[in-house]
Amino acid sequence: MVTEMNGAESLVQTLLACGVDTCFANPGTSEMHFVAALDRVAGMRCVLGLFEGVVTGAADGYSRLSGKPAATLLHLGPGLANGLANLHNARRAGSPVVNIVGEHASFHLRYDAPLTSDIEGVARPMSHWVRTSRDAASVAQDGADAVAAARAAPGQIATLILPADTAWNPARAIGRPPLVDPPRKVDDSVVAESARLLRRGAGTLLLLGGDALTEENLRAAGAIAAHSGADLMATTYMRNMARGAGRVSIPRLPYPVAQALPALAPYRTIILVGAPPPVSFFGYPESPSELHPPGCTLHRMVATGEDAGDALARLIDRLGADPSAARLQAPERPAAPRGPITPDGIAQALAAALPENAIVVDEAITTGRGFYAAMAGAAPHSWLSNLGGSIGFGPPVGTGAAVAAPDRKVFCLEGDGSFMYTPQSLWTQARENLDVTTIVFANRSYNILKHELAMVGAGNPGRNALDMLELDRPDLDIAGLARAMGVPARKATTLEELNQALENAVASSGPKLIEVML
Amino acid sequence: MVTEMNGAESLVQTLLACGVDTCFANPGTSEMHFVAALDRVAGMRCVLGLFEGVVTGAADGYSRLSGKPAATLLHLGPGLANGLANLHNARRAGSPVVNIVGEHASFHLRYDAPLTSDIEGVARPMSHWVRTSRDAASVAQDGADAVAAARAAPGQIATLILPADTAWNPARAIGRPPLVDPPRKVDDSVVAESARLLRRGAGTLLLLGGDALTEENLRAAGAIAAHSGADLMATTYMRNMARGAGRVSIPRLPYPVAQALPALAPYRTIILVGAPPPVSFFGYPESPSELHPPGCTLHRMVATGEDAGDALARLIDRLGADPSAARLQAPERPAAPRGPITPDGIAQALAAALPENAIVVDEAITTGRGFYAAMAGAAPHSWLSNLGGSIGFGPPVGTGAAVAAPDRKVFCLEGDGSFMYTPQSLWTQARENLDVTTIVFANRSYNILKHELAMVGAGNPGRNALDMLELDRPDLDIAGLARAMGVPARKATTLEELNQALENAVASSGPKLIEVML
Repeated sequence: MVTEMNGAESLVQTLLACGVDTCFANPGTSEMHFVAALDRVAGMRCVLGLFEGVVTGAADGYSRLSGKPAATLLHLGPGLANGLANLHNARRAGSPVVNIVGEHASFHLRYDAPLTSDIEGVARPMSHWVRTSRDAASVAQDGADAVAAARAAPGQIATLILPADTAWNPARAIGRPPLVDPPRKVDDSVVAESARLLRRGAGTLLLLGGDALTEENLRAAGAIAAHSGADLMATTYMRNMARGAGRVSIPRLPYPVAQALPALAPYRTIILVGAPPPVSFFGYPESPSELHPPGCTLHRMVATGEDAGDALARLIDRLGADPSAARLQAPERPAAPRGPITPDGIAQALAAALPENAIVVDEAITTGRGFYAAMAGAAPHSWLSNLGGSIGFGPPVGTGAAVAAPDRKVFCLEGDGSFMYTPQSLWTQARENLDVTTIVFANRSYNILKHELAMVGAGNPGRNALDMLELDRPDLDIAGLARAMGVPARKATTLEELNQALENAVASSGPKLIEVML
Repeated sequence: MVTEMNGAESLVQTLLACGVDTCFANPGTSEMHFVAALDRVAGMRCVLGLFEGVVTGAADGYSRLSGKPAATLLHLGPGLANGLANLHNARRAGSPVVNIVGEHASFHLRYDAPLTSDIEGVARPMSHWVRTSRDAASVAQDGADAVAAARAAPGQIATLILPADTAWNPARAIGRPPLVDPPRKVDDSVVAESARLLRRGAGTLLLLGGDALTEENLRAAGAIAAHSGADLMATTYMRNMARGAGRVSIPRLPYPVAQALPALAPYRTIILVGAPPPVSFFGYPESPSELHPPGCTLHRMVATGEDAGDALARLIDRLGADPSAARLQAPERPAAPRGPITPDGIAQALAAALPENAIVVDEAITTGRGFYAAMAGAAPHSWLSNLGGSIGFGPPVGTGAAVAAPDRKVFCLEGDGSFMYTPQSLWTQARENLDVTTIVFANRSYNILKHELAMVGAGNPGRNALDMLELDRPDLDIAGLARAMGVPARKATTLEELNQALENAVASSGPKLIEVML
């Protein structure tokens, strides 16, 4: 049934027809017709963010839990620019996102009004697909094409730029829902080569990343490990990893080069399953960028965007392995710890308190280095971390994850430094009453940079350098920030207080913040 | 005296030699050598921001008061991306900025580590000049070239990308301080044509923007107006305008098209003095983009980046005008108002309280529409507003202005919506004990968008659309946010409370925030 509608309405209808029913938004004048269309077309959930980094990060988190793209609604070039950092992270994670970016009406562009900028230029570095709609009649199909681009494996960033007149002029059709190719299956020769390498015996590692870290795929990898004697390891960062009791528990590649090198040193062969070749996060003067040992063979079995589950199943077949042989993690719920706050104590408190089926968003930086290992035996949970390295990732991703999975509890583990990039996320959590508990580890410094300063050989920092690394003077009151945005908050100065705060978070729904005083 | 130093040290020394002695920074690993150099090279003031939009906006504000560029220090592509919106505003204002953006060590780039992105691509839309340093020996001259590019009239955005190894490898020289061309003087023929148009008599407007709004240039324009009978008007937004008692007081072009059209309707001739042709901020379906009346002649006397003062002086000569004939604004300090909070009452309170030589940063959006006119007779002050239209401008610009002018009081007038884009500015104000009073007008909505929704013909918003325009549920506690970042704050619910809060702000130094409850 096609009735008279404008371009914006045709776009909203198209997005819905393509399965995109959630939009994270920070709109302005050029997006007002899209906003007005929300009243006229039923079915689109629109979630307001007070800053664009919240919007794009939420879209990333949403896709990690829902398996489908959200739309974002952003205001011209500068609005998109404010969202780029979390689009970078989403892009690196293989998260699909459909950005709708308003633009001046096409007749207005030549006047070079204040907000005019090269929006396509702003979009391109962080987008796989960029298009500017030509007219109102094109908007619907452009929208469908954007969704198709976003859904191309492993998940892409598609940016559709909408001149205001293409939104307000009449349109008639809605776009065709895209046919999206399923993830590519790997060649038989690649599976055969993997089997051959595994049969060579000891010294082989399966390095798993991306979709290889789902519960089912981890179980398949576990079966291969049990059959072949190979080791399993996860990439340092993961899009959405199944963890906890009853799952296949595997270590992750450490971030620090000094730990990553010995972790990979034992291997003659590394089979990459949805993981890129292991490289250091930064280049350093005195250490190698490549983390695998000299002479080690890297074999890419599953590239990013290829079907990890299919490849692992075929490898099990070819090896003749028992698909149910994976060793599963036993529950290891520690007692609630006591005493002064320490990183190990925090990890123990988290492992003790974590409820079934929680979502953990890890941006805890230095404080959180030990959490991953310590939480291996906690209740089953999902682990989300940042594959792009741009901080300010956690609170928005937790927000979007909670929108996608309203029946699950989200725990955002944050450094105080990283928290301050996108604190506005808390307001959206309060408005939408999202079940997110943000735990901020207040060490009052960019602690990671103190290590990095040494790693790059920049020596012992003096007063001027330290001023760039320390967040005291004044101390931030993170709990106060949360309350000011409508999120109940408390401070924990002992592990007992942390236990109690976690217990309270688990016992009741809705957003909360715990500031852990280190 | 050339001693052994690394690339980062050669850059810091070069910046100092070129007159750039202030750096707003949000560094990461790839910038650690620059940070370390701050200890080894004396004289660079480095100011930390917790978010990159603070850093770039502060550089804009700094340049508006100091007349020279600051450096920024940003972390790879995503760090630069977070700073782009305020670079867009700085670019539109003609503010010089030298961005130093860290990049992976050149040997590390090919590994496509998590933070890798196309930094030049990110920089280009908002930069006039972009360069990636080739090696440590080139960094110093690259830095000098960046300063020269930034200082080219009217002021440009220069972005220098520094691979980490160019910072840590040995360098020997420092860069040559740049020779910068003075602003171009306009042709005699253009001055002559201006004189001819002014002699035609009534119906002529001088529209002043950019450097034409300094105290001296406004006085020259006032002399021309007194001699010729022409009217004077300022652009809607201004980089740094001299205002208040004893200055030449002129109206500004209103933002709403419905007010701008009648404001320009009387004129047969508009002479542009450092102002672009008057156009509407956005294009609307039912109103023109060009604001001058049909048949009106636009004559560009002084283009952006040309020497307004010289042109105005030569025009005075040619007209035979009396250079001291400008009509100066008499002091008009109103009594402190009483009663419930209204926009007019706020304007009166500000005009009453403003101390001599204050700096006003105007991002008050809808609440502040009447402030400009109402404050014409207040104590002499500087008026800074946003020429780029990307909100989140005020708190960072006020921060940078206060760094540049420590002996002056800064008043940032903010909407609550706009405040929430870069609230982290307050922490920097607290850390540096800057004399900034932020006044937030809490109407709990993106009020401007309600007007804009009607202007674009999108009709009456329903519940879903209103959800994108209203900032209640939950109410933000802006005063609480300020206190949590170390800035003393109070709420004003009556004009009496506002008067008292302003009195307190004027009486003592250091950052403060006043939340005005509308």
